[in-house]
Amino acid sequence: MAKGLRYKAVIMYDGTQFSGFQVQPDQRTVQGELERALAELAKGVKVRVHGAGRTDAGVHSRGQIIHFDFPFEIDPEGLMIGMNAKTTAEITISNLIRVDDSFHARYMAKGKKYSYRVHNNRFKDPFLRHYSYHHRYPMNKAKVEHALERLTGTHDFTSFASTHSDKEDKIRTIYKASVEVNEETGEWIFTFTGNGFLYNMIRIIIGTLLQVADGRREPEEITTIIAKKERESAGPTASPVGLCMEEVYYTLKDIPGFE
Amino acid sequence: MAKGLRYKAVIMYDGTQFSGFQVQPDQRTVQGELERALAELAKGVKVRVHGAGRTDAGVHSRGQIIHFDFPFEIDPEGLMIGMNAKTTAEITISNLIRVDDSFHARYMAKGKKYSYRVHNNRFKDPFLRHYSYHHRYPMNKAKVEHALERLTGTHDFTSFASTHSDKEDKIRTIYKASVEVNEETGEWIFTFTGNGFLYNMIRIIIGTLLQVADGRREPEEITTIIAKKERESAGPTASPVGLCMEEVYYTLKDIPGFE
Repeated sequence: MAKGLRYKAVIMYDGTQFSGFQVQPDQRTVQGELERALAELAKGVKVRVHGAGRTDAGVHSRGQIIHFDFPFEIDPEGLMIGMNAKTTAEITISNLIRVDDSFHARYMAKGKKYSYRVHNNRFKDPFLRHYSYHHRYPMNKAKVEHALERLTGTHDFTSFASTHSDKEDKIRTIYKASVEVNEETGEWIFTFTGNGFLYNMIRIIIGTLLQVADGRREPEEITTIIAKKERESAGPTASPVGLCMEEVYYTLKDIPGFE
Repeated sequence: MAKGLRYKAVIMYDGTQFSGFQVQPDQRTVQGELERALAELAKGVKVRVHGAGRTDAGVHSRGQIIHFDFPFEIDPEGLMIGMNAKTTAEITISNLIRVDDSFHARYMAKGKKYSYRVHNNRFKDPFLRHYSYHHRYPMNKAKVEHALERLTGTHDFTSFASTHSDKEDKIRTIYKASVEVNEETGEWIFTFTGNGFLYNMIRIIIGTLLQVADGRREPEEITTIIAKKERESAGPTASPVGLCMEEVYYTLKDIPGFE
Protein backbone atom coordinates (compact mmCIF):
# COMPACT_ATOMS: atom_id res chain seq x y z
CA MET A 1 0.00 0.00 0.00
CA ALA A 2 1.67 3.19 -1.18
CA LYS A 3 1.49 6.48 0.68
CA GLY A 4 0.85 9.30 -1.72
CA LEU A 5 -1.13 12.45 -2.20
CA ARG A 6 -4.61 12.41 -0.72
CA TYR A 7 -7.75 12.96 -2.83
CA LYS A 8 -11.39 13.45 -1.87
CA ALA A 9 -14.15 12.55 -4.35
CA VAL A 10 -17.93 12.66 -4.62
CA ILE A 11 -19.33 9.34 -5.88
CA MET A 12 -22.78 8.73 -7.37
CA TYR A 13 -23.90 5.16 -7.89
CA ASP A 14 -26.86 3.05 -8.85
CA GLY A 15 -26.63 0.37 -6.17
CA THR A 16 -29.02 -2.08 -7.87
CA GLN A 17 -26.40 -4.53 -9.08
CA PHE A 18 -23.88 -4.12 -6.26
CA SER A 19 -23.54 -6.14 -3.04
CA GLY A 20 -23.27 -2.80 -1.24
CA PHE A 21 -20.42 -0.32 -0.93
CA GLN A 22 -17.88 -2.19 1.12
CA VAL A 23 -15.40 -4.70 -0.31
CA GLN A 24 -16.38 -8.32 0.36
CA PRO A 25 -14.69 -11.44 -0.95
CA ASP A 26 -16.17 -12.65 -4.27
CA GLN A 27 -18.78 -9.89 -4.32
CA ARG A 28 -19.23 -7.00 -6.74
CA THR A 29 -19.07 -3.86 -4.60
CA VAL A 30 -18.69 -0.13 -5.25
CA GLN A 31 -15.49 0.09 -3.22
CA GLY A 32 -14.10 -2.93 -5.06
CA GLU A 33 -14.93 -1.36 -8.43
CA LEU A 34 -13.28 1.95 -7.42
CA GLU A 35 -10.16 0.19 -6.10
CA ARG A 36 -9.88 -1.87 -9.29
CA ALA A 37 -10.09 1.30 -11.41
CA LEU A 38 -7.55 3.14 -9.23
CA ALA A 39 -5.10 0.22 -9.33
CA GLU A 40 -5.27 0.30 -13.14
CA LEU A 41 -4.60 4.03 -13.14
CA ALA A 42 -1.79 3.55 -10.60
CA LYS A 43 -0.02 0.99 -12.82
CA GLY A 44 -0.96 -1.91 -10.59
CA VAL A 45 -0.23 -0.31 -7.20
CA LYS A 46 -3.07 -1.11 -4.79
CA VAL A 47 -5.00 1.98 -3.65
CA ARG A 48 -7.28 1.67 -0.60
CA VAL A 49 -10.57 3.60 -0.81
CA HIS A 50 -12.23 4.91 2.39
CA GLY A 51 -15.92 5.80 2.19
CA ALA A 52 -17.85 8.15 4.49
CA GLY A 53 -20.35 5.38 5.13
CA ARG A 54 -21.31 1.88 4.05
CA THR A 55 -24.42 1.34 2.01
CA ASP A 56 -26.17 -2.02 1.70
CA ALA A 57 -26.95 -3.96 -1.48
CA GLY A 58 -29.49 -2.07 -3.59
CA VAL A 59 -28.92 1.27 -1.81
CA HIS A 60 -27.94 4.22 -3.99
CA SER A 61 -25.80 7.33 -3.64
CA ARG A 62 -25.71 10.78 -5.10
CA GLY A 63 -23.19 12.08 -2.61
CA GLN A 64 -21.02 9.35 -1.10
CA ILE A 65 -17.63 10.81 -0.18
CA ILE A 66 -14.42 8.83 -0.45
CA HIS A 67 -10.76 9.57 0.14
CA PHE A 68 -7.69 7.70 -1.02
CA ASP A 69 -3.95 8.17 -1.37
CA PHE A 70 -2.74 8.00 -4.95
CA PRO A 71 0.89 6.84 -5.32
CA PHE A 72 1.86 9.23 -8.13
CA GLU A 73 1.69 12.94 -8.80
CA ILE A 74 -1.45 13.39 -10.89
CA ASP A 75 -3.74 16.26 -11.84
CA PRO A 76 -7.16 15.89 -10.07
CA GLU A 77 -8.98 16.70 -13.32
CA GLY A 78 -7.14 13.96 -15.24
CA LEU A 79 -7.61 11.51 -12.37
CA MET A 80 -11.38 12.17 -12.33
CA ILE A 81 -11.66 11.64 -16.09
CA GLY A 82 -9.56 8.48 -15.81
CA MET A 83 -11.67 7.07 -12.97
CA ASN A 84 -14.90 7.77 -14.88
CA ALA A 85 -13.44 6.04 -17.93
CA LYS A 86 -12.31 2.97 -15.95
CA THR A 87 -15.46 2.45 -13.88
CA THR A 88 -18.80 0.95 -14.95
CA ALA A 89 -21.64 3.28 -16.04
CA GLU A 90 -23.32 2.52 -12.68
CA ILE A 91 -20.73 4.73 -10.96
CA THR A 92 -19.93 8.38 -11.64
CA ILE A 93 -17.18 10.38 -9.96
CA SER A 94 -18.79 13.83 -10.03
CA ASN A 95 -16.10 15.80 -8.21
CA LEU A 96 -12.48 15.17 -7.23
CA ILE A 97 -10.03 17.42 -5.39
CA ARG A 98 -6.67 17.25 -3.61
CA VAL A 99 -7.01 17.44 0.17
CA ASP A 100 -4.71 17.63 3.14
CA ASP A 101 -3.34 14.31 4.43
CA SER A 102 -5.32 14.82 7.62
CA PHE A 103 -8.69 14.51 5.84
CA HIS A 104 -10.60 11.30 6.52
CA ALA A 105 -13.92 10.66 4.73
CA ARG A 106 -15.45 8.65 7.60
CA TYR A 107 -13.85 9.94 10.82
CA MET A 108 -14.30 13.61 9.95
CA ALA A 109 -17.93 13.36 8.79
CA LYS A 110 -20.17 15.48 11.04
CA GLY A 111 -23.46 14.47 9.50
CA LYS A 112 -25.29 12.97 6.52
CA LYS A 113 -28.38 13.42 4.45
CA TYR A 114 -30.37 10.44 3.17
CA SER A 115 -33.48 10.34 1.03
CA TYR A 116 -36.03 7.54 0.78
CA ARG A 117 -38.45 7.45 -2.16
CA VAL A 118 -41.83 5.74 -2.15
CA HIS A 119 -44.31 5.65 -5.02
CA ASN A 120 -47.85 5.40 -3.76
CA ASN A 121 -49.56 4.24 -6.96
CA ARG A 122 -51.90 1.38 -7.66
CA PHE A 123 -49.26 -0.57 -9.64
CA LYS A 124 -45.48 -0.64 -9.43
CA ASP A 125 -43.89 1.80 -11.91
CA PRO A 126 -41.41 -0.04 -14.20
CA PHE A 127 -39.21 3.07 -14.37
CA LEU A 128 -39.05 3.57 -10.61
CA ARG A 129 -38.78 -0.04 -9.47
CA HIS A 130 -35.05 0.13 -8.65
CA TYR A 131 -35.13 3.64 -7.17
CA SER A 132 -38.40 3.97 -5.28
CA TYR A 133 -40.31 1.55 -3.06
CA HIS A 134 -43.85 0.74 -4.18
CA HIS A 135 -46.53 1.07 -1.50
CA ARG A 136 -50.06 0.63 -2.79
CA TYR A 137 -52.18 1.56 0.23
CA PRO A 138 -53.53 5.11 0.63
CA MET A 139 -51.10 7.24 2.65
CA ASN A 140 -51.97 10.09 5.00
CA LYS A 141 -49.49 12.97 4.83
CA ALA A 142 -50.58 14.79 8.01
CA LYS A 143 -50.07 11.64 10.07
CA VAL A 144 -46.65 11.04 8.53
CA GLU A 145 -45.59 14.61 9.28
CA HIS A 146 -46.74 14.24 12.86
CA ALA A 147 -44.61 11.07 13.16
CA LEU A 148 -41.61 12.81 11.57
CA GLU A 149 -41.81 15.55 14.22
CA ARG A 150 -41.62 12.94 16.96
CA LEU A 151 -38.54 11.38 15.35
CA THR A 152 -36.70 14.70 15.06
CA GLY A 153 -34.23 15.59 17.81
CA THR A 154 -31.79 13.66 20.00
CA HIS A 155 -32.99 10.20 21.01
CA ASP A 156 -31.74 6.74 21.83
CA PHE A 157 -32.64 5.04 18.54
CA THR A 158 -32.16 1.44 19.75
CA SER A 159 -35.69 0.57 18.57
CA PHE A 160 -34.78 1.76 15.06
CA ALA A 161 -31.43 -0.04 14.78
CA SER A 162 -30.73 -3.47 13.34
CA THR A 163 -29.91 -5.98 16.06
CA HIS A 164 -26.71 -6.46 14.02
CA SER A 165 -25.65 -2.89 14.71
CA ASP A 166 -22.16 -2.91 16.24
CA LYS A 167 -22.41 0.58 17.73
CA GLU A 168 -22.62 0.63 21.52
CA ASP A 169 -23.93 4.17 21.74
CA LYS A 170 -27.36 4.34 20.07
CA ILE A 171 -27.99 8.04 20.75
CA ARG A 172 -28.25 10.07 17.56
CA THR A 173 -29.67 13.44 16.52
CA ILE A 174 -32.01 13.86 13.57
CA TYR A 175 -31.79 17.55 12.71
CA LYS A 176 -34.44 17.52 10.06
CA ALA A 177 -36.97 14.94 8.85
CA SER A 178 -39.37 15.93 6.09
CA VAL A 179 -41.46 14.58 3.26
CA GLU A 180 -42.41 16.06 -0.11
CA VAL A 181 -45.35 14.60 -2.01
CA ASN A 182 -45.89 14.90 -5.75
CA GLU A 183 -49.64 14.34 -6.07
CA GLU A 184 -49.36 14.01 -9.84
CA THR A 185 -46.86 11.16 -9.97
CA GLY A 186 -47.68 9.65 -6.56
CA GLU A 187 -44.08 10.03 -5.40
CA TRP A 188 -43.19 10.66 -1.76
CA ILE A 189 -39.63 11.78 -1.07
CA PHE A 190 -38.54 11.51 2.56
CA THR A 191 -35.39 13.38 3.61
CA PHE A 192 -33.42 12.94 6.84
CA THR A 193 -30.38 14.85 8.06
CA GLY A 194 -28.58 13.80 11.19
CA ASN A 195 -25.23 13.52 12.91
CA GLY A 196 -25.15 9.82 12.10
CA PHE A 197 -27.49 6.92 11.42
CA LEU A 198 -27.37 3.45 12.95
CA TYR A 199 -27.34 0.29 10.81
CA ASN A 200 -30.69 0.05 8.94
CA MET A 201 -32.02 3.04 10.94
CA ILE A 202 -33.64 4.85 8.02
CA ARG A 203 -35.09 1.67 6.54
CA ILE A 204 -36.66 0.77 9.92
CA ILE A 205 -37.95 4.34 10.32
CA ILE A 206 -39.55 4.08 6.86
CA GLY A 207 -40.99 0.63 7.60
CA THR A 208 -42.63 2.19 10.67
CA LEU A 209 -43.72 5.41 8.90
CA LEU A 210 -45.50 3.37 6.21
CA GLN A 211 -47.55 1.73 8.99
CA VAL A 212 -48.43 5.21 10.26
CA ALA A 213 -49.15 6.41 6.71
CA ASP A 214 -51.69 3.72 5.90
CA GLY A 215 -53.32 3.67 9.34
CA ARG A 216 -51.84 0.53 10.90
CA ARG A 217 -50.28 2.66 13.68
CA GLU A 218 -50.89 6.10 15.13
CA PRO A 219 -48.17 8.79 14.91
CA GLU A 220 -48.14 9.09 18.72
CA GLU A 221 -46.76 5.54 18.92
CA ILE A 222 -43.39 6.82 17.67
CA THR A 223 -42.70 8.26 21.13
CA THR A 224 -43.56 4.94 22.79
CA ILE A 225 -41.42 3.00 20.32
CA ILE A 226 -38.41 5.24 21.00
CA ALA A 227 -38.94 4.87 24.78
CA LYS A 228 -39.08 1.05 24.58
CA LYS A 229 -35.53 0.73 23.21
CA GLU A 230 -36.22 -2.63 21.62
CA ARG A 231 -36.07 -3.42 17.90
CA GLU A 232 -39.35 -5.44 17.95
CA SER A 233 -41.40 -2.41 18.94
CA ALA A 234 -40.75 -0.67 15.58
CA GLY A 235 -41.95 -1.68 12.11
CA PRO A 236 -40.17 -3.87 9.54
CA THR A 237 -36.99 -2.90 7.70
CA ALA A 238 -38.13 -1.29 4.43
CA SER A 239 -36.63 -2.38 1.09
CA PRO A 240 -33.21 -0.92 0.20
CA VAL A 241 -34.36 0.25 -3.25
CA GLY A 242 -35.79 3.58 -2.08
CA LEU A 243 -32.75 4.60 -0.05
CA CYS A 244 -30.10 7.02 -1.32
CA MET A 245 -27.13 8.66 0.44
CA GLU A 246 -27.49 12.25 -0.68
CA GLU A 247 -24.80 14.22 1.09
CA VAL A 248 -22.04 14.04 3.69
CA TYR A 249 -21.26 17.09 5.83
CA TYR A 250 -17.85 17.91 7.29
CA THR A 251 -18.98 21.09 9.07
CA LEU A 252 -21.90 21.04 11.52
CA LYS A 253 -23.29 24.37 10.37
CA ASP A 254 -23.69 22.99 6.80
CA ILE A 255 -26.24 20.40 7.96
CA PRO A 256 -29.84 21.43 7.14
CA GLY A 257 -31.71 21.72 10.44
CA PHE A 258 -28.58 22.19 12.60
CA GLU A 259 -28.85 25.25 14.85
CA MET B 1 -56.21 -19.21 -31.54
CA ALA B 2 -59.53 -18.65 -29.83
CA LYS B 3 -61.94 -15.90 -30.75
CA GLY B 4 -63.26 -14.23 -27.64
CA LEU B 5 -64.09 -10.91 -26.13
CA ARG B 6 -61.83 -8.07 -27.17
CA TYR B 7 -59.80 -6.03 -24.65
CA LYS B 8 -57.73 -2.86 -25.04
CA ALA B 9 -54.91 -2.12 -22.60
CA VAL B 10 -52.33 0.56 -21.88
CA ILE B 11 -48.86 -0.92 -21.37
CA MET B 12 -45.87 0.74 -19.72
CA TYR B 13 -42.49 -0.93 -20.02
CA ASP B 14 -38.84 -0.44 -19.31
CA GLY B 15 -37.37 -1.66 -22.61
CA THR B 16 -33.79 -2.00 -21.35
CA GLN B 17 -33.73 -5.79 -21.10
CA PHE B 18 -36.09 -6.58 -23.99
CA SER B 19 -35.25 -7.30 -27.64
CA GLY B 20 -38.01 -4.85 -28.53
CA PHE B 21 -41.77 -5.19 -28.49
CA GLN B 22 -42.44 -7.69 -31.23
CA VAL B 23 -42.21 -11.46 -30.77
CA GLN B 24 -39.04 -12.94 -32.24
CA PRO B 25 -37.84 -16.53 -31.98
CA ASP B 26 -35.58 -17.13 -28.95
CA GLN B 27 -35.72 -13.48 -27.90
CA ARG B 28 -37.20 -11.90 -24.78
CA THR B 29 -39.79 -9.41 -26.03
CA VAL B 30 -42.64 -7.41 -24.50
CA GLN B 31 -45.25 -9.03 -26.74
CA GLY B 32 -43.84 -12.46 -25.90
CA GLU B 33 -44.02 -11.73 -22.18
CA LEU B 34 -47.62 -10.46 -22.47
CA GLU B 35 -48.68 -13.49 -24.54
CA ARG B 36 -47.05 -15.86 -22.04
CA ALA B 37 -48.93 -14.19 -19.16
CA LEU B 38 -52.23 -14.24 -21.06
CA ALA B 39 -51.85 -17.91 -21.99
CA GLU B 40 -51.37 -18.70 -18.30
CA LEU B 41 -54.49 -16.75 -17.40
CA ALA B 42 -56.38 -18.42 -20.29
CA LYS B 43 -55.54 -21.91 -19.01
CA GLY B 44 -53.08 -22.56 -21.80
CA VAL B 45 -55.09 -21.16 -24.71
CA LYS B 46 -52.80 -19.04 -26.92
CA VAL B 47 -53.79 -15.36 -27.01
CA ARG B 48 -52.34 -13.15 -29.75
CA VAL B 49 -51.41 -9.60 -28.70
CA HIS B 50 -51.55 -6.74 -31.24
CA GLY B 51 -49.59 -3.59 -30.42
CA ALA B 52 -50.19 -0.09 -31.79
CA GLY B 53 -46.55 0.05 -32.85
CA ARG B 54 -43.29 -1.83 -32.60
CA THR B 55 -40.52 -0.50 -30.44
CA ASP B 56 -36.87 -1.52 -30.81
CA ALA B 57 -34.60 -3.05 -28.18
CA GLY B 58 -33.95 -0.55 -25.39
CA VAL B 59 -36.92 1.68 -26.30
CA HIS B 60 -39.46 2.35 -23.55
CA SER B 61 -43.19 2.95 -23.32
CA ARG B 62 -45.55 4.76 -21.02
CA GLY B 63 -48.49 4.47 -23.37
CA GLN B 64 -48.23 1.52 -25.77
CA ILE B 65 -51.73 0.29 -26.65
CA ILE B 66 -52.50 -3.35 -27.24
CA HIS B 67 -55.63 -5.32 -28.05
CA PHE B 68 -56.31 -9.03 -27.75
CA ASP B 69 -59.20 -11.47 -27.71
CA PHE B 70 -59.51 -13.38 -24.47
CA PRO B 71 -61.16 -16.80 -24.81
CA PHE B 72 -63.20 -16.65 -21.61
CA GLU B 73 -65.66 -14.29 -19.99
CA ILE B 74 -63.58 -12.31 -17.52
CA ASP B 75 -63.95 -9.04 -15.61
CA PRO B 76 -61.50 -6.40 -17.02
CA GLU B 77 -60.45 -5.41 -13.49
CA GLY B 78 -59.57 -9.00 -12.58
CA LEU B 79 -57.80 -9.53 -15.89
CA MET B 80 -55.68 -6.40 -15.34
CA ILE B 81 -54.70 -7.52 -11.84
CA GLY B 82 -53.92 -11.01 -13.16
CA MET B 83 -51.76 -9.68 -16.01
CA ASN B 84 -49.82 -7.42 -13.63
CA ALA B 85 -49.26 -10.38 -11.31
CA LYS B 86 -48.08 -12.68 -14.13
CA THR B 87 -45.74 -10.24 -15.91
CA THR B 88 -42.24 -9.13 -14.90
CA ALA B 89 -41.81 -5.86 -12.93
CA GLU B 90 -40.47 -4.29 -16.16
CA ILE B 91 -44.05 -4.26 -17.53
CA THR B 92 -47.12 -2.62 -16.03
CA ILE B 93 -50.65 -2.83 -17.42
CA SER B 94 -51.96 0.55 -16.29
CA ASN B 95 -55.43 0.37 -17.81
CA LEU B 96 -57.60 -2.34 -19.33
CA ILE B 97 -61.12 -2.15 -20.79
CA ARG B 98 -63.52 -4.20 -22.91
CA VAL B 99 -63.82 -2.87 -26.48
CA ASP B 100 -65.90 -3.60 -29.52
CA ASP B 101 -64.61 -6.41 -31.76
CA SER B 102 -63.98 -3.84 -34.49
CA PHE B 103 -61.23 -2.11 -32.47
CA HIS B 104 -57.68 -2.64 -33.76
CA ALA B 105 -54.73 -1.18 -31.81
CA ARG B 106 -52.57 -0.65 -34.92
CA TYR B 107 -54.93 -0.12 -37.86
CA MET B 108 -57.14 2.36 -36.04
CA ALA B 109 -54.32 4.49 -34.58
CA LYS B 110 -54.52 8.05 -35.93
CA GLY B 111 -51.35 9.33 -34.33
CA LYS B 112 -48.70 8.88 -31.67
CA LYS B 113 -46.65 10.85 -29.21
CA TYR B 114 -43.00 9.99 -28.53
CA SER B 115 -40.53 11.58 -26.16
CA TYR B 116 -36.75 11.51 -26.36
CA ARG B 117 -34.67 12.41 -23.29
CA VAL B 118 -31.11 13.70 -23.37
CA HIS B 119 -28.99 14.67 -20.36
CA ASN B 120 -26.51 17.35 -21.24
CA ASN B 121 -24.14 16.97 -18.28
CA ARG B 122 -20.39 16.58 -18.08
CA PHE B 123 -20.63 12.92 -16.98
CA LYS B 124 -23.23 10.25 -17.64
CA ASP B 125 -25.78 10.06 -14.79
CA PRO B 126 -25.94 6.50 -13.38
CA PHE B 127 -29.65 6.90 -12.63
CA LEU B 128 -30.54 8.10 -16.13
CA ARG B 129 -28.29 5.84 -18.20
CA HIS B 130 -31.09 3.52 -19.36
CA TYR B 131 -33.71 6.27 -19.84
CA SER B 132 -31.88 9.29 -21.21
CA TYR B 133 -29.09 9.66 -23.76
CA HIS B 134 -25.92 11.35 -22.50
CA HIS B 135 -24.60 14.17 -24.70
CA ARG B 136 -21.69 16.05 -23.17
CA TYR B 137 -21.21 18.95 -25.60
CA PRO B 138 -22.85 22.35 -24.92
CA MET B 139 -26.28 22.53 -26.56
CA ASN B 140 -27.97 25.62 -28.00
CA LYS B 141 -31.72 25.68 -27.35
CA ALA B 142 -32.62 28.48 -29.81
CA LYS B 143 -30.96 26.58 -32.67
CA VAL B 144 -32.73 23.36 -31.72
CA GLU B 145 -36.10 25.12 -31.64
CA HIS B 146 -35.42 26.61 -35.04
CA ALA B 147 -34.68 23.13 -36.39
CA LEU B 148 -37.84 21.71 -34.75
CA GLU B 149 -39.94 24.33 -36.56
CA ARG B 150 -38.51 23.20 -39.88
CA LEU B 151 -39.36 19.57 -39.08
CA THR B 152 -42.97 20.36 -38.16
CA GLY B 153 -45.62 19.88 -40.84
CA THR B 154 -46.17 17.46 -43.71
CA HIS B 155 -43.00 16.29 -45.43
CA ASP B 156 -41.49 13.36 -47.27
CA PHE B 157 -39.31 12.04 -44.43
CA THR B 158 -37.20 9.66 -46.58
CA SER B 159 -34.00 11.30 -45.28
CA PHE B 160 -35.10 10.53 -41.71
CA ALA B 161 -36.10 6.90 -42.29
CA SER B 162 -33.98 3.80 -41.86
CA THR B 163 -33.05 2.26 -45.21
CA HIS B 164 -34.71 -0.86 -43.75
CA SER B 165 -38.07 0.89 -43.60
CA ASP B 166 -40.63 -1.21 -45.46
CA LYS B 167 -43.11 1.63 -45.96
CA GLU B 168 -43.42 2.79 -49.58
CA ASP B 169 -45.06 6.11 -48.71
CA LYS B 170 -42.65 8.21 -46.67
CA ILE B 171 -44.91 11.24 -46.29
CA ARG B 172 -45.80 11.94 -42.68
CA THR B 173 -47.11 14.89 -40.67
CA ILE B 174 -45.45 16.08 -37.47
CA TYR B 175 -48.14 18.10 -35.70
CA LYS B 176 -45.98 19.30 -32.86
CA ALA B 177 -42.26 19.10 -32.10
CA SER B 178 -40.99 20.75 -28.93
CA VAL B 179 -38.26 20.61 -26.31
CA GLU B 180 -38.28 21.39 -22.60
CA VAL B 181 -35.00 22.03 -20.84
CA ASN B 182 -34.41 21.64 -17.11
CA GLU B 183 -31.36 23.85 -16.54
CA GLU B 184 -30.90 22.47 -13.03
CA THR B 185 -30.61 18.79 -13.92
CA GLY B 186 -29.33 19.26 -17.48
CA GLU B 187 -32.23 17.25 -18.90
CA TRP B 188 -33.71 17.99 -22.33
CA ILE B 189 -37.05 16.36 -23.09
CA PHE B 190 -38.02 16.34 -26.77
CA THR B 191 -41.65 15.59 -27.65
CA PHE B 192 -43.07 14.73 -31.08
CA THR B 193 -46.67 14.14 -32.10
CA GLY B 194 -47.53 12.98 -35.59
CA ASN B 195 -49.84 10.85 -37.67
CA GLY B 196 -47.17 8.18 -37.87
CA PHE B 197 -43.42 7.77 -37.70
CA LEU B 198 -41.18 5.81 -40.07
CA TYR B 199 -38.74 3.18 -38.84
CA ASN B 200 -36.03 4.92 -36.74
CA MET B 201 -37.45 8.33 -37.72
CA ILE B 202 -37.29 9.92 -34.27
CA ARG B 203 -33.87 8.49 -33.51
CA ILE B 204 -32.51 9.89 -36.81
CA ILE B 205 -34.19 13.24 -36.13
CA ILE B 206 -32.52 13.32 -32.70
CA GLY B 207 -29.13 12.30 -34.15
CA THR B 208 -29.46 15.27 -36.51
CA LEU B 209 -30.80 17.68 -33.86
CA LEU B 210 -27.82 16.94 -31.61
CA GLN B 211 -25.54 18.03 -34.48
CA VAL B 212 -27.55 21.25 -34.69
CA ALA B 213 -27.51 21.64 -30.90
CA ASP B 214 -23.73 21.48 -30.54
CA GLY B 215 -22.95 23.50 -33.67
CA ARG B 216 -21.93 20.81 -36.16
CA ARG B 217 -24.83 21.81 -38.43
CA GLU B 218 -27.02 24.87 -38.86
CA PRO B 219 -30.81 24.63 -38.25
CA GLU B 220 -31.45 25.77 -41.83
CA GLU B 221 -29.92 22.53 -43.12
CA ILE B 222 -33.03 20.65 -41.95
CA THR B 223 -34.90 21.99 -44.98
CA THR B 224 -32.12 20.86 -47.34
CA ILE B 225 -31.95 17.43 -45.69
CA ILE B 226 -35.71 16.93 -46.11
CA ALA B 227 -35.50 18.02 -49.77
CA LYS B 228 -32.67 15.57 -50.56
CA LYS B 229 -34.75 12.49 -49.70
CA GLU B 230 -31.70 10.39 -48.96
CA ARG B 231 -30.80 8.81 -45.62
CA GLU B 232 -27.11 9.84 -45.83
CA SER B 233 -27.96 13.53 -45.77
CA ALA B 234 -29.28 13.33 -42.18
CA GLY B 235 -27.35 12.63 -38.98
CA PRO B 236 -26.73 9.27 -37.27
CA THR B 237 -29.43 7.16 -35.60
CA ALA B 238 -29.40 8.18 -31.93
CA SER B 239 -29.30 5.54 -29.18
CA PRO B 240 -32.61 3.82 -28.33
CA VAL B 241 -32.26 4.51 -24.58
CA GLY B 242 -33.75 8.01 -24.67
CA LEU B 243 -36.83 7.04 -26.69
CA CYS B 244 -40.24 6.41 -25.15
CA MET B 245 -43.66 5.81 -26.74
CA GLU B 246 -45.85 8.14 -24.70
CA GLU B 247 -49.31 7.96 -26.19
CA VAL B 248 -51.40 6.54 -29.03
CA TYR B 249 -54.33 8.53 -30.40
CA TYR B 250 -57.44 7.03 -31.98
CA THR B 251 -59.14 10.36 -32.73
CA LEU B 252 -57.35 13.05 -34.76
CA LYS B 253 -58.62 15.92 -32.65
CA ASP B 254 -56.97 14.38 -29.55
CA ILE B 255 -53.48 14.80 -31.04
CA PRO B 256 -51.63 17.81 -29.59
CA GLY B 257 -50.91 20.20 -32.47
CA PHE B 258 -53.64 18.83 -34.77
CA GLU B 259 -55.91 21.58 -36.09
